Amino acid sequence: MTWEILSIIGTIAFAVSGAIIAMEEEYDILGTYILGIVTAFGGGAIRNLLIGVPVSALWEQSLLFQIALLSITIIFLFPHNLLRHWQRWGNFFDAMGLAAFAIQGALYAKQMGHPLSAIIVAAVLTGSGGGIIRDVLAKRKPLVLQSEIYAVWAILCGFAIGLGLAKEPIELYLLFAIITMLRVLSYIFKWKLPNKTGIKTASHHD
Amino acid sequence: MTWEILSIIGTIAFAVSGAIIAMEEEYDILGTYILGIVTAFGGGAIRNLLIGVPVSALWEQSLLFQIALLSITIIFLFPHNLLRHWQRWGNFFDAMGLAAFAIQGALYAKQMGHPLSAIIVAAVLTGSGGGIIRDVLAKRKPLVLQSEIYAVWAILCGFAIGLGLAKEPIELYLLFAIITMLRVLSYIFKWKLPNKTGIKTASHHD
Amino acid sequence: MTWEILSIIGTIAFAVSGAIIAMEEEYDILGTYILGIVTAFGGGAIRNLLIGVPVSALWEQSLLFQIALLSITIIFLFPHNLLRHWQRWGNFFDAMGLAAFAIQGALYAKQMGHPLSAIIVAAVLTGSGGGIIRDVLAKRKPLVLQSEIYAVWAILCGFAIGLGLAKEPIELYLLFAIITMLRVLSYIFKWKLPNKTGIKTASHHD
Repeated sequence: MTWEILSIIGTIAFAVSGAIIAMEEEYDILGTYILGIVTAFGGGAIRNLLIGVPVSALWEQSLLFQIALLSITIIFLFPHNLLRHWQRWGNFFDAMGLAAFAIQGALYAKQMGHPLSAIIVAAVLTGSGGGIIRDVLAKRKPLVLQSEIYAVWAILCGFAIGLGLAKEPIELYLLFAIITMLRVLSYIFKWKLPNKTGIKTASHHD
Repeated sequence: MTWEILSIIGTIAFAVSGAIIAMEEEYDILGTYILGIVTAFGGGAIRNLLIGVPVSALWEQSLLFQIALLSITIIFLFPHNLLRHWQRWGNFFDAMGLAAFAIQGALYAKQMGHPLSAIIVAAVLTGSGGGIIRDVLAKRKPLVLQSEIYAVWAILCGFAIGLGLAKEPIELYLLFAIITMLRVLSYIFKWKLPNKTGIKTASHHD
Repeated sequence: MTWEILSIIGTIAFAVSGAIIAMEEEYDILGTYILGIVTAFGGGAIRNLLIGVPVSALWEQSLLFQIALLSITIIFLFPHNLLRHWQRWGNFFDAMGLAAFAIQGALYAKQMGHPLSAIIVAAVLTGSGGGIIRDVLAKRKPLVLQSEIYAVWAILCGFAIGLGLAKEPIELYLLFAIITMLRVLSYIFKWKLPNKTGIKTASHHD
C-alpha cells in the first residue's frame, strides 16, 4: 500500500514538474502534456528497470495515467500570476518525485539484502532518473549534476533505509516529507557543495 | 504478419531519418551509420520495453539489421542534389517511423485490455521514442516537443485503435498511410498548436 | 570468469571516465560521483538490456559498486598537476570501457548464433552505450558521433569475434588491449574518416 502511494506521488510529481518546465520553455499545450507524461513515465520506467519490474507493468496502472493527465491539465489551467514563481514550483514537485522514487529504490535494494553502498546508489539512481530524462529532453543540464545540493538527500534517504531507521509506513512517509523539504530548502537557500576548483556561480540555463 | 511488416517499416524509417540527420550535421560515413542504427534500434528498444518484449529480442531479427544497413547505404550514396530538401526527407521518414511504432504501441495496449487514455499514451510514447533518441544524440530539441504538430497524429492513432476503428490489416495499413501523410502535411504547412504565452517562432537549431 | 573480469574493467573504466568529465566541467564532489556512477551503470544497464539480462541484475554485483566508488574517489583525490592532460586520460578510460563492453556484446550475439552483421552492430551498441549516456548528461555531443575514429574499433572487435579469430580468454584479453590501444592512438593522432561534404574541423565542445 505504501509502495503504491509512493508510486502515485512520484508519478504525479514528475508529471507536474515536466509540465511546468514545458511551460517555462513556452511549449504548446501538447508539448506540455508530452513532457509531463514522458517525465512521469520515464522516471517510472527507469525505476522499474532498476528494481527488476517489467517496464510494461506501467500500463497496468491505468488509474495512474488518468491522474497524471488530470494533474497536467490542472497545472496548465492554473492562473498565470500564481505561477510567477514557476521555477520554485517546478523544484517543489521535482523534490517530491525524487523523494518518492529514492525511497522505493532504497527499499527494493534493502529487501534484496544488498549492502549499504548498493542501497545508496539505488536510492540516487532511482530518484534522479525522472528528472534526468526531463532535463535532457528540455536541453537543460540535469538538476542532479548541478551545484545545488540534490543527490545528497537521496543519499540520506539510502542511509535511513539502509540502516533500518525507516521501516514502518509512518516512518517512510515522514522520511518522504523530510527529504522533500530538505531538497526544497537547499534550492531556496542555494546550499552548495564545494567543487575541486572552487565554487563557480554559473547560471544553469545554458 | 502485419506486426512484422510494421516493425520492418518503422525500423527502416528511423534508420534512414537518423542517417539523414547525421548527413545534415556533416558526420562522417561511420557517424551516419551509427546515428542511423542507434535511432532505428533505440526506437525499437523503447518500443520493446514499453510493450513488454525483451530488448534483446531485437537480435533475432537479423534480416532487419541487414535491411537497415542497406537502407543507410542507399541514402548515403543517394545523389547530393536529390537530397537538397533533406529536412523534408528526414521528416518524411520520421513520420513513417512514428506511424508504424505508434500503431504497434496502441495495438499492444488495446490487446492488454487497457482504457482509451492508456492506449493513447502508449501510442505517443512508442511512436516518439526513436525520434527522441535521435534528436537527443544530435543535440537537437526533440521534434515531439516542438511547436509543429507531431504527437497529435499519434494521439489520433491511439483513438482510432482504441475505439476499434482500425482492426483488420488493411485498416491498419490505411491508418499508417493517413498518419504518415498528416504528419508530413503538418510539417510542410507548418501547422501549429497554440502555447500558453502566444506563438513563438523560434528556430529549433539552437 | 573472463566475462566477469570484462564487466569489472568496463564498469570501472566508465566510472572513471564519467568522473573525469565531471571534473573537467567543474562539477562539485557529489556531481563527480554521480556522473561516474551513472556512466558506469548506465553503460552496464544498456549492455544488460541488449544482451537480455535484467537490468536489476546489476545490484547483485555489490563488489562492483564498491570498486566503482573507490575508483572515483581515487581519481577525485589524484594530484591536480598529474591530471593536466585530463581529456587524454578521460579518453583512455573511455577506450577501455568501449573495448570491454564491445567484446561482451559481440560474444553474446555470437553465442546466440547470429550472423556477422548483427554481431558487429551488437559490439558497437554495447560498447558505445556508456559513453553516450555520459556525454548526453554532460551536454556534449556523443564521442561515437564525432569525426575521430571511435566505432571503427568496436566494428573491428565484432569482426574478430564474429569470424572466430578471438575465442579463448587469452585471445579476448589481447583483443581488449588492441582495441583500447587503437582507440587511444586514433584520439592522439586525430585519425579521421571522411564525411560526405569534406572534413570539417569543428570543436566538439559546443
